[in-house]
Amino acid sequence: MTPEVSQIAAEPASKDRLRLWLRLLKTTRHIEAELRDRLRTEFGTTLPRFDVMAALSRHADGMKMSKLSGVLRVSNGNVTGIVDRLVDDGFVVRVAVPGDRRASLVRLTPKGQGEFARQATAHEAWLDAMLDTIDQSEAVAFAQRLDSLAHELMEDT
Amino acid sequence: MTPEVSQIAAEPASKDRLRLWLRLLKTTRHIEAELRDRLRTEFGTTLPRFDVMAALSRHADGMKMSKLSGVLRVSNGNVTGIVDRLVDDGFVVRVAVPGDRRASLVRLTPKGQGEFARQATAHEAWLDAMLDTIDQSEAVAFAQRLDSLAHELMEDT
Repeated sequence: MTPEVSQIAAEPASKDRLRLWLRLLKTTRHIEAELRDRLRTEFGTTLPRFDVMAALSRHADGMKMSKLSGVLRVSNGNVTGIVDRLVDDGFVVRVAVPGDRRASLVRLTPKGQGEFARQATAHEAWLDAMLDTIDQSEAVAFAQRLDSLAHELMEDT
Repeated sequence: MTPEVSQIAAEPASKDRLRLWLRLLKTTRHIEAELRDRLRTEFGTTLPRFDVMAALSRHADGMKMSKLSGVLRVSNGNVTGIVDRLVDDGFVVRVAVPGDRRASLVRLTPKGQGEFARQATAHEAWLDAMLDTIDQSEAVAFAQRLDSLAHELMEDT
């Protein structure tokens, strides 16, 4: 059989790339649903709330709402509602920006830092258990491949 | 250096699994956002609408609303709204179930089949271009690994 004939016989690569995408989506959604359930049952919180607190935990000096919104890729309105509830719970404060009367920064309170630390520890342990069939070296290689793929995607678009 | 000492020095595997998860999520969200944009600009449709039509295209005899809802993992109410609009557009019909007056099936019309075929062809081509740095054999291996991971996750939960 010549290479040409075997190429004609095989499925096009586009089918395998489509299948890869569907598997990526399925796996991600499955893990996300599991994390969502556990955050709800064990901490009475939601994934968007967790994501907001995670972003704030990486910005000890506070973040502008517009930047928080960008991190979450959700509408500004949604972030506002989430932040309002986090303020009510005492996890977050709004602080004025010196020299800019219209702007404010959002920051975790010490209580919010403590709560997020507990949630983040649990979140890491859940993932560790869910992904325990992926050994450390595979996890590193897999993450690197996804990272290079993400960079390629960013350059294309 | 004894193995114990090098284990203490290294980061725990849980950190690499967490990093892997964050990369998976970022890559999936990036691709999904791109697909969402293109479906909107090129077909004036949404990802949930596309997902409903995709599910119906695999069930030529029609699907019950409850089953459609399960496929989408969204609330029944959302699926109802999407199906209502697809009916208005002439892409979908509701058909009675013989012997069950309360149940109905949802099915693509020939017009809906034609429209979905166009969308699915474009969707496959977009993914093929986005994932073009993943060659066919890597795509196959990657999809298989995700498949086995998904099976392991299903068994755990």
